[in-house]
Amino acid sequence: MIEPFDDTYFMQKAIQEAEMAFEKGEIPVGAVIVIDNKIIARGHNLTETLTDVTAHAEMQAITAAANFLGGKYLKGCTLYVTLEPCQMCAGALYWSQISRIVYGARDIERGCINLKTKLHPKTKIEGGILEDKASDILKRFFIMKRNLN
Amino acid sequence: MIEPFDDTYFMQKAIQEAEMAFEKGEIPVGAVIVIDNKIIARGHNLTETLTDVTAHAEMQAITAAANFLGGKYLKGCTLYVTLEPCQMCAGALYWSQISRIVYGARDIERGCINLKTKLHPKTKIEGGILEDKASDILKRFFIMKRNLN
Repeated sequence: MIEPFDDTYFMQKAIQEAEMAFEKGEIPVGAVIVIDNKIIARGHNLTETLTDVTAHAEMQAITAAANFLGGKYLKGCTLYVTLEPCQMCAGALYWSQISRIVYGARDIERGCINLKTKLHPKTKIEGGILEDKASDILKRFFIMKRNLN
Repeated sequence: MIEPFDDTYFMQKAIQEAEMAFEKGEIPVGAVIVIDNKIIARGHNLTETLTDVTAHAEMQAITAAANFLGGKYLKGCTLYVTLEPCQMCAGALYWSQISRIVYGARDIERGCINLKTKLHPKTKIEGGILEDKASDILKRFFIMKRNLN
């Protein structure tokens, strides 16, 4: 059976957001938030553009999704993000009570899994969707940055 | 020696911000960010007003301080906040590399200390400044809320 709106489909949309960050010279991380197979929020890292450490892809998507829904809780929603969320974003996701988090690449050093950031009991997290693609764009970015310096 | 700009002075300013949150029906938490004895940013909890779980006092103050400084790192700055930061705010403070965090009341259940949120190695954290006052405004708020329901 063909499933047009599966995890791979939505992660691909998150990667498109990461590409937009890349083009702006930002560490390329992108996110979308989905409810009932519909994208209700998009975001990509804008920390340099906004000179604001809080401007991660997920934070912007959380704010935008709550705005769309007219309520601050993201029950029934899934976040697709190209890189495992950091403590800040996982902490925001805790407050949002989001139902599901799907990430692409792991972040061993600064990600919420190894740092044991507490998620809401109602939140499920899983990773590895389009991991190579999500990881490749980050690698490409850091190689480019090194070559520029 | 009289010290007009000590921790108590700036925590009092953070409590004034918490009072502003109280008046808006928000959980009363307030914050200020200080550099060289000068307040460069203020914030109070606006999660209900903005229907946004990310609108904590600290998050707004971090964004405002970076905006004031024209750079995203808050080196040399101190955050005064009436309640111990949560995982999200502590995670944002990690990225900001802020020099010092001073909080009023402890948050045993949802605060960054018991949840072991990682702070930047350059960041010092201490608590208990005007703890009773910071705690009283929260107690007053929750008593009022209970009586309304």
